[in-house]
Amino acid sequence: MRLAVIAGDGIGPEVVAEGLKVLREVAPDVEPTHYDLGAMRWQRTGELLPDPVVEELRGHDAILLGAIGDPSVPPGILERGLLLRLRFELDHHVNLRPARLFDGVASPLADPGTIDMLCVREGTEGPYVGNGGVLRRDTPQEVATEVSLNTAFGVERVVRYAFERAVARPRRHLTLIHKTNVLTHAGGLWSRTVEEISAEFPEVTVAYQHVDAASMFFITDPGRYDVIVTDNLFGDIITDIAAAVTGGIGLAASGNLDASGTNPGMFEPVHGSAPDIAGQGVADPTATVLSIGLLLEHLGRTEQARKVNAAVAFDLSTRAPQGPVRTSEVGDRLAALASG
Amino acid sequence: MRLAVIAGDGIGPEVVAEGLKVLREVAPDVEPTHYDLGAMRWQRTGELLPDPVVEELRGHDAILLGAIGDPSVPPGILERGLLLRLRFELDHHVNLRPARLFDGVASPLADPGTIDMLCVREGTEGPYVGNGGVLRRDTPQEVATEVSLNTAFGVERVVRYAFERAVARPRRHLTLIHKTNVLTHAGGLWSRTVEEISAEFPEVTVAYQHVDAASMFFITDPGRYDVIVTDNLFGDIITDIAAAVTGGIGLAASGNLDASGTNPGMFEPVHGSAPDIAGQGVADPTATVLSIGLLLEHLGRTEQARKVNAAVAFDLSTRAPQGPVRTSEVGDRLAALASG
Ligand SMILES: CC(C)[C@H](C(=O)O)[C@@H](O)C(=O)O
Ligand SMILES: CC(C)[C@H](C(=O)O)[C@@H](O)C(=O)O
Repeated sequence: MRLAVIAGDGIGPEVVAEGLKVLREVAPDVEPTHYDLGAMRWQRTGELLPDPVVEELRGHDAILLGAIGDPSVPPGILERGLLLRLRFELDHHVNLRPARLFDGVASPLADPGTIDMLCVREGTEGPYVGNGGVLRRDTPQEVATEVSLNTAFGVERVVRYAFERAVARPRRHLTLIHKTNVLTHAGGLWSRTVEEISAEFPEVTVAYQHVDAASMFFITDPGRYDVIVTDNLFGDIITDIAAAVTGGIGLAASGNLDASGTNPGMFEPVHGSAPDIAGQGVADPTATVLSIGLLLEHLGRTEQARKVNAAVAFDLSTRAPQGPVRTSEVGDRLAALASG
Repeated sequence: MRLAVIAGDGIGPEVVAEGLKVLREVAPDVEPTHYDLGAMRWQRTGELLPDPVVEELRGHDAILLGAIGDPSVPPGILERGLLLRLRFELDHHVNLRPARLFDGVASPLADPGTIDMLCVREGTEGPYVGNGGVLRRDTPQEVATEVSLNTAFGVERVVRYAFERAVARPRRHLTLIHKTNVLTHAGGLWSRTVEEISAEFPEVTVAYQHVDAASMFFITDPGRYDVIVTDNLFGDIITDIAAAVTGGIGLAASGNLDASGTNPGMFEPVHGSAPDIAGQGVADPTATVLSIGLLLEHLGRTEQARKVNAAVAFDLSTRAPQGPVRTSEVGDRLAALASG
């Protein structure tokens, strides 16, 4: 397995080191190549994501990313020049974000119940395309626009992926989240696409919710969801709500996939570079390890993925609640559990 | 006080009746005029909001709305033809949504702490303008767009209103919520506007958060917020999260204001018409009564508003937790408390 590793900034290298420890245990054939990208490289060289690096990344089976970001870099530069650019260059139209409340994990909800949902967020369209502009900047007549672009091609492929995931899960339920009563043009395309593709998946029951209502139900009744499919911006918001109610982004894993298989997927913890705790060995690598679970699953290495996920589930169920975390100890434990 | 009343559909008339009961108690000069608008009128006559009605509404001091909506009406018709049209016609650029966790109210959060925030959502711009379209509908080449329009004029006035509210509150704190790292055009306008106007309000401390991060903090640490200002669509989502953590939309009040005072404000509970419980006398009128508190406050009737809000606070603190609600009993209690 040729694995490109972008450890990145802050706690990125720390959590990635533990992730690789666990990965090596279950997939001894992993061959990591490290890429130096992120805030430090940009500070040193002004480079964000050189074109030859993009080409090299394409030659791998998968990409593991730690975290990108540093307070010294003006906001937006790394997000757009590196993170979003990777999503667009590698056609990562599926942004996969499971949210499961593991046994032993404290939820901020008083009565969370069982939470086990899989959010399928579109990754290359919607309001993220960077289309829009500013007219008469810095005058009282300024106008700023943002255009959400949605195509049948783009919506169809992510909706199809979501149905494929839903049909393979026990509950076989899919919820479309949008705001069709206000965003009628894009909402219509999304609704019609879900309706059309649902005909190919008669076993899957389908529901629709407006994003505002869903944001409430994620808090009052998260157990009702199984698979969710939604646009890029709504997905950005609701997956963070889902992460919050299942114990926080410290445990949230994600995968950025080209479902056609043409480009390698990129797997990363949802949390950021956390510069405040970087270098102290106290970052929790669990989200990175869960992202490796997604990586293995996407590569069809089902049994290896199962081992990694089972290790995390067992470890979380036996961890001292809210106790302090030592990054390398968690990694050691998870590696031992996964190999066992 | 010339009050236009749009009781609307489902539980709308029931909660409005109790709201008026309370209002009459504190403001005996109220002169209500009832307008028959909503699903039933549309079914009967095909009319949503006739132009002469809009003109008549303008002649009032305020508008009280119950709820609009019925399953028999295709989604979007009433929202766009009535609710959103009213916002645009009456230039309701401030959508005011307080979220306070009252004593005695159960939050879905295990440890909610003190929550007392005031969300100031923009109401006439952003992705709500209805700008966009569909090309090659129902073909594999379909493209659907939604354009978010943001103007210096529109952003400035809502941001200024938010600062004015923030400076009058004990904590004097204002948080801008946007997604400036992705929506750079609109985000830039919002950020620069907040920065500029903050110079006029040196007593107000200002914070910024991306909408995804804020959606998490609304769940894990809602007590950190005082006044919030945000765009139309982000405001739609985050105010529902705020409502969820403070006991649900059953208690959420809102005001749609033209801060210039040219047009009357419209005040309404955030909940919908709840056709499943309509006609049974079990809808909770509390959100309507709190909306009347906002109405009185907006008209400068501070003492009357205080009485209404105090009545609600006292009633909630002494209500049987999660007990059944009788609409008219709650109204009677609140009316008695408010008059006392
Ligand atoms: C960093 C940012 C551009 C990104 C996004 O908005 O998609 C992040 O919030 C995420 O969810 O991965
Ligand atoms: C009914 C709908 C158009 C409306 C909105 O999206 O603004 C509602 O959700 C609200 O928040 O008042």
